[in-house]
Amino acid sequence: MNEPVHPSHAELDSLRKNAEELAEISRGVIRNAPSFSTSIKSDSSVVTEVDLATERRLREEISRRFPQHGIQGEEFPAINAHSPYQWVLDPIDGTVSFTHHIPLYGTIIALYFKGAPVVGVIDHPALGIRTSAARGLGTFCNGARITLADVAPDQPIEREVIATTRRSNFSKAGLEREFMALQLAHPDVRGYTDCFGHTLAIRGQVGAMIDAHLQLWDIAATTLLIEEAGGKSELLKAERQPDGATRYTLIWGKPRVVDWLRAQIFKAA
Amino acid sequence: MNEPVHPSHAELDSLRKNAEELAEISRGVIRNAPSFSTSIKSDSSVVTEVDLATERRLREEISRRFPQHGIQGEEFPAINAHSPYQWVLDPIDGTVSFTHHIPLYGTIIALYFKGAPVVGVIDHPALGIRTSAARGLGTFCNGARITLADVAPDQPIEREVIATTRRSNFSKAGLEREFMALQLAHPDVRGYTDCFGHTLAIRGQVGAMIDAHLQLWDIAATTLLIEEAGGKSELLKAERQPDGATRYTLIWGKPRVVDWLRAQIFKAA
Repeated sequence: MNEPVHPSHAELDSLRKNAEELAEISRGVIRNAPSFSTSIKSDSSVVTEVDLATERRLREEISRRFPQHGIQGEEFPAINAHSPYQWVLDPIDGTVSFTHHIPLYGTIIALYFKGAPVVGVIDHPALGIRTSAARGLGTFCNGARITLADVAPDQPIEREVIATTRRSNFSKAGLEREFMALQLAHPDVRGYTDCFGHTLAIRGQVGAMIDAHLQLWDIAATTLLIEEAGGKSELLKAERQPDGATRYTLIWGKPRVVDWLRAQIFKAA
Repeated sequence: MNEPVHPSHAELDSLRKNAEELAEISRGVIRNAPSFSTSIKSDSSVVTEVDLATERRLREEISRRFPQHGIQGEEFPAINAHSPYQWVLDPIDGTVSFTHHIPLYGTIIALYFKGAPVVGVIDHPALGIRTSAARGLGTFCNGARITLADVAPDQPIEREVIATTRRSNFSKAGLEREFMALQLAHPDVRGYTDCFGHTLAIRGQVGAMIDAHLQLWDIAATTLLIEEAGGKSELLKAERQPDGATRYTLIWGKPRVVDWLRAQIFKAA
C-alpha cells in the first residue's frame, strides 16, 4: 500500500467547502429539531435526541461523499479507524447552553490527515455565525477571510476580555487556584463557555479563551482556526484519564494575551 | 393642576407597543451604524458615535409621540424633568461587548410613571431577541407571552447556570469577597455581562443574574420584565456616590435561586 499523499491546496480548499456544507446541513437539523422548545422532558433526554439526529445526519453525508474516510464522534462508534483521513465531530458543543436555550452552543467539525487537523469548522446555528479554516489557506467567517491582530505593544492587556470555561472544569483539570488567581488579576473575565468562547477568540473579540478538561472533539477545530487567522494556541495540559481518553487544557488567542496568561497565571501548569 | 391618573391597562398596552416600536427604530440605527465594522479608530470614539446617534433618534421619536413626557438618558441632559412620565434610555448597554463586536449588547428602554417602572424593553439588535413588559400585563419575548418557572423543590440549584457581571464591578460595589465565594460555591457561574445576562434571567435560561454597581438606566427595565414574567428581584445595594448618582446592585431570577444566593452568598450585603 502506498503512503497517502498530503492533500494539495486545491484539495484542501474543496475539503473546507465540503465541511462548510456539512455545517449547513447540521445547522438545519438543529434549527428544525422537532418540538425542541416544547417537549422537553429532562435535559439529558432532549440533548441526546438532537445530538444523535445531528451526528447521524453528518455521518450519512460524510460516508456518501467520502466513503473511505474515518469518522469519530461523541455519540457513535468510530468507523474506518485506519484511514489517513479522520472526521472528528461534536454535533452539539455546549449542551448545557443548548438545553437551557442559551443561543451560544455550536457544532464542531474537523478533518484530520495522519493525525494533524487540516480542516476545521465551528458553526453557531442560533447566531448564524460560522468560521472555517484549511491548513495554509487561512480562516473565514461567514464566507469572508478574517485575520487576528495582536494587541499592540502600548495597549494594556486589561482592555481585552478574557473568556473561560466554567470553574468546575478548571477544578477537574487541577487548575482551580489558577482560575481564581485569574479572576483577581484581570478585571473582565467572562464565562463564555464552550465553542462560543472559541469563536470569540478566533474572531479577536476576546483577547483569549481558556478551556479546560476537554475531549478531542471539543478542541478538534479550534487550534487550526486560531493559527490560520494569525493567533496563537498553547497546550497547557494533555492528561490521560483512567478510561484511556485524554483530556486537554488549552489557551487560544492573540499572541500577547496568550503569553501574558502563560507567564502570569498558568506558569506552573 | 390635577393629580395625574395612573395609566389604564389599555394605555399601558399601547405604551408597551410604542416602546417596542422605539426598540425597532433603535435596532435599525445600530444595525446600520455607518461602517462600524471597518472604520473603528478607538473603542471610545466609535461607541460614542453610535451611542449618540441611537439616543438622539430615540429622543426625537419619543418627543414626537409624547411631547409632554420626560426623557433621561446616558448621553444628553434630561428634558421635562417634572412630568409624571419619564422615559429612561440606555442606547447601548454593554459598550465593551459592542466595541469588541461581541454580539450580546443591547438597548434598554423603560417608562416610569411617578417614579415606578410601568413599561420595560430590552432589545438585542445582533441577536434578534427583544423582551417587553407592561405592569400587570405580563412579559413578552419576540411577541409571545413568556412566564418564568421556578426551580422545582426537588431539583438542585447546581443545575442552574448563574450569570454575573465582571469581577471589577463587584469590587467597586464592595462585594469582591462574595463574588469569589460564589465562584467556589457554584460549578457554573458565567460572566454574561450587561443586559444579555438580564435577558437570560428574564427568559429563565439562567437561574439568576447578579449585576453590580449599576446606573439607573442599566436596571430601568429589568425588574419589571422579571417580575411580570413571574420571577423575583432582590435589591442588594443602592449606594449614593460622591457625584450624587446612586449605584445599584441587584439579583434577578427564579425565586429559589435568588433566595439561595441571598442566603448563602450575599447574606452580609
